[in-house]
Amino acid sequence: MDDRLFAEMDAIFHPRSMAAIGVKEDMGNQGMSFLLGYRNQGFTGPLYAIHPTRKLKEFDTYPSLLDVPGPVDMVKIALPARLVPGVIRDCGKKGVRSAVIFSSGFRESGTAAGAALEEELVASAREGGVRIIGPNCMGIYCPESGMSLRVDMPALKGGELSLISQSGGVSNSLVMAAAERGIGFAKAVSYGNESDLGPVEFLPYFADDPRTKVIAVYVEGTRRPEEFRRALAEAAAKKPVVALKGGTTAVGSRAVSSHTGALTGTGEVWKAVVRQAGAHWAEDLDELLDLCLLLSLSRPPAGRRVCLLTISGGFGVFATDQITRAGFEMPPLSAGTRERLAPFIDAPGSNLGNPIDMAAKFFQPQNYDSIFPVLRDDPNFDAYIMILANEYMAYLGKNLRSWSEFVVKALIPTLKKIGKPVYIVLMRTAGEDVRLDHERTLLAAGFPVFPTVARCLTALNRSIR
Amino acid sequence: MDDRLFAEMDAIFHPRSMAAIGVKEDMGNQGMSFLLGYRNQGFTGPLYAIHPTRKLKEFDTYPSLLDVPGPVDMVKIALPARLVPGVIRDCGKKGVRSAVIFSSGFRESGTAAGAALEEELVASAREGGVRIIGPNCMGIYCPESGMSLRVDMPALKGGELSLISQSGGVSNSLVMAAAERGIGFAKAVSYGNESDLGPVEFLPYFADDPRTKVIAVYVEGTRRPEEFRRALAEAAAKKPVVALKGGTTAVGSRAVSSHTGALTGTGEVWKAVVRQAGAHWAEDLDELLDLCLLLSLSRPPAGRRVCLLTISGGFGVFATDQITRAGFEMPPLSAGTRERLAPFIDAPGSNLGNPIDMAAKFFQPQNYDSIFPVLRDDPNFDAYIMILANEYMAYLGKNLRSWSEFVVKALIPTLKKIGKPVYIVLMRTAGEDVRLDHERTLLAAGFPVFPTVARCLTALNRSIR
Repeated sequence: MDDRLFAEMDAIFHPRSMAAIGVKEDMGNQGMSFLLGYRNQGFTGPLYAIHPTRKLKEFDTYPSLLDVPGPVDMVKIALPARLVPGVIRDCGKKGVRSAVIFSSGFRESGTAAGAALEEELVASAREGGVRIIGPNCMGIYCPESGMSLRVDMPALKGGELSLISQSGGVSNSLVMAAAERGIGFAKAVSYGNESDLGPVEFLPYFADDPRTKVIAVYVEGTRRPEEFRRALAEAAAKKPVVALKGGTTAVGSRAVSSHTGALTGTGEVWKAVVRQAGAHWAEDLDELLDLCLLLSLSRPPAGRRVCLLTISGGFGVFATDQITRAGFEMPPLSAGTRERLAPFIDAPGSNLGNPIDMAAKFFQPQNYDSIFPVLRDDPNFDAYIMILANEYMAYLGKNLRSWSEFVVKALIPTLKKIGKPVYIVLMRTAGEDVRLDHERTLLAAGFPVFPTVARCLTALNRSIR
Repeated sequence: MDDRLFAEMDAIFHPRSMAAIGVKEDMGNQGMSFLLGYRNQGFTGPLYAIHPTRKLKEFDTYPSLLDVPGPVDMVKIALPARLVPGVIRDCGKKGVRSAVIFSSGFRESGTAAGAALEEELVASAREGGVRIIGPNCMGIYCPESGMSLRVDMPALKGGELSLISQSGGVSNSLVMAAAERGIGFAKAVSYGNESDLGPVEFLPYFADDPRTKVIAVYVEGTRRPEEFRRALAEAAAKKPVVALKGGTTAVGSRAVSSHTGALTGTGEVWKAVVRQAGAHWAEDLDELLDLCLLLSLSRPPAGRRVCLLTISGGFGVFATDQITRAGFEMPPLSAGTRERLAPFIDAPGSNLGNPIDMAAKFFQPQNYDSIFPVLRDDPNFDAYIMILANEYMAYLGKNLRSWSEFVVKALIPTLKKIGKPVYIVLMRTAGEDVRLDHERTLLAAGFPVFPTVARCLTALNRSIR
């Protein structure tokens, strides 16, 4: 990306002041939600509210953008569609650099009037030198600048994932689902109808953005397929990129046209484009997030030989079936490993095959340093999958939380000594609150955590291009 | 099932007194865990602890079973394997009706000594007229009798699911995972090595048990394939039966032999057996539980025509792809439905196609009675899938919980008026604790709830045999 364009894009993620246009004090008003979101995120510049007649208590309010005394770098527009082109003309006059248009009722409406309105707003923007995000989108999330998609977005700073999403629902959902597990996003953008900016601009920007380690793209369709393909390939050459496509079936495609008005193309064509670009393909939101976590925290396995560690024989049986069906191998432990582990994995019900069933021995963290580092020296494996069924984590002791926290914390340094990727499956059984705590602890320590063996295997398979 | 055998099996689930053999006061001691589990569940009969030298504070302790003054209906044995046959002989002398043998180190050990020990204990049991559950199992869970698999099992009474599981880990995990969502089991049994009782006996018992509505079976293998097949078909003729097989691959099968020592057979053979028997096939634990919930709370759709309801266009696009790929149809709304709904689903961003995107209108429960009952009269659909992305549920209002609870509670009576199956997808995004609360509320109201569209569709497909 050339320096001038990078700077222009970077400015969109770092505005010095923001005005929300169409702000009422009603519960659920979007303009208000944007302003409160920025305030909650700690946005440090001036925040202005624009409303022709009302005055807000919480924010400086002006009847029009042109009445704002200071400069305004970015606006968020939550007005009826027909009023938007006029406001965009004001933006040009005011020297606004970018406008996020939340309003819908443009091309995605499927009407000639909607399409004409969108053309009018794009022409106004070009004329005034304003870059457009949207319409029909949520816009930009950037915790480092204090920019939010809405009032209740998490303000987790320091995340390394960045997201480009055509859908506002998808961007909000992914950011919030990741935050629930303690994982932050560096930046996210929901771009809706792509009347101006879209993946073609955001992909190269994120590819050069030093704060972004992994890029996720959710796209429903584009009117710039060739440019999209090139941007995807160039970004994937620099960083891991995970792509998810909505509307891969005929009926889904019909749903797209009334959602963001985009041209879709078939799923197979998109999959081929993504693969040829060297990006990773995800089939749904869970896969997208799983894969981003795997690629940001760990690395894909170097080969397909898996060692499975469990604390329950039944789960071991299942997972073995699943691992085998997913195309991975489960070679036996080397003789040396068996010999060195035998004194430590010897409880009734435990098993030193592959899977290794640690059974009750799992609950003796004093032996971890005699067990896990041994696996480092076994040449038979490329990766380790460890299944922690949560109700076992809460098995012993009355103060279940402190006990299981002790075990999880003991696992971390010693699992790291294995020196090959360790993927953890924290099954959802009993004690969801406990599980979520453990998941956050393990993710923060750099271990990818999955709620099921199936999701772990899908992520592994998709991580190996 | 003949009356005599039914009564014999029923007695196993309703013992009047219980003794745990091999009880120490150590944290994690299994004998102690069994006794405390029964006490926590409210078992009303006498509970005895057996230990040759120690005395327990909490329970009447005797050096041997033969020293217990009153009758003992059931024993749970947590002793080293070599001591078990002797205790079984004592059981015969004492008139004990059934013994749950937790101990491992029998046939599943793969040693000749282990196999010989198992034969010895079976011979002793036959001689003394004692029925055996196990060895290498957790035994029986029955909240109505106060019987537990371990100290911390939930005591939810009134559940309608019953489970027959070869693995103790699987039985514990399923019971606890269901309880987390407020769903109780009527009965569960973990039977391990199947030295005496197994699915051949438990299937007909549950099929005739008036408290059981749906039967789940987790099996790794059996030495009685013909009897199993017959029992499965006879049970499935009476009630929905869902079967899950562990060890369907060659490597998984190897893992079975060291887990419960069973003969496995290939996955395809088992699948054919299950299908021919008229039972439902599940591929993993999540599928097993999803399918049980669907079959106990609702019914399979009468056909494959689905109407999708969402509150986010992006999710609607995805789900449409997934529904189509899963082999379901999404016909348009009938003209009459569109006309009647148009005044109520008219917010910007909403859409009256299929999917129906309710957008902001979802958050106006005052309109629910004008919306959902209309769908009852649309002849185009066999079933409705409603996606609630949890971060939307928590969108408006500061007191998020009370707001979203209000919405969920308003949904229940009006969704019921649709009169056709409604399946709900409560996506895991933000606010897992809120989501879990809503899930419990909706499950308690009789709606099957799934965490992803993919799991909902898998359950639907597997529910249609």
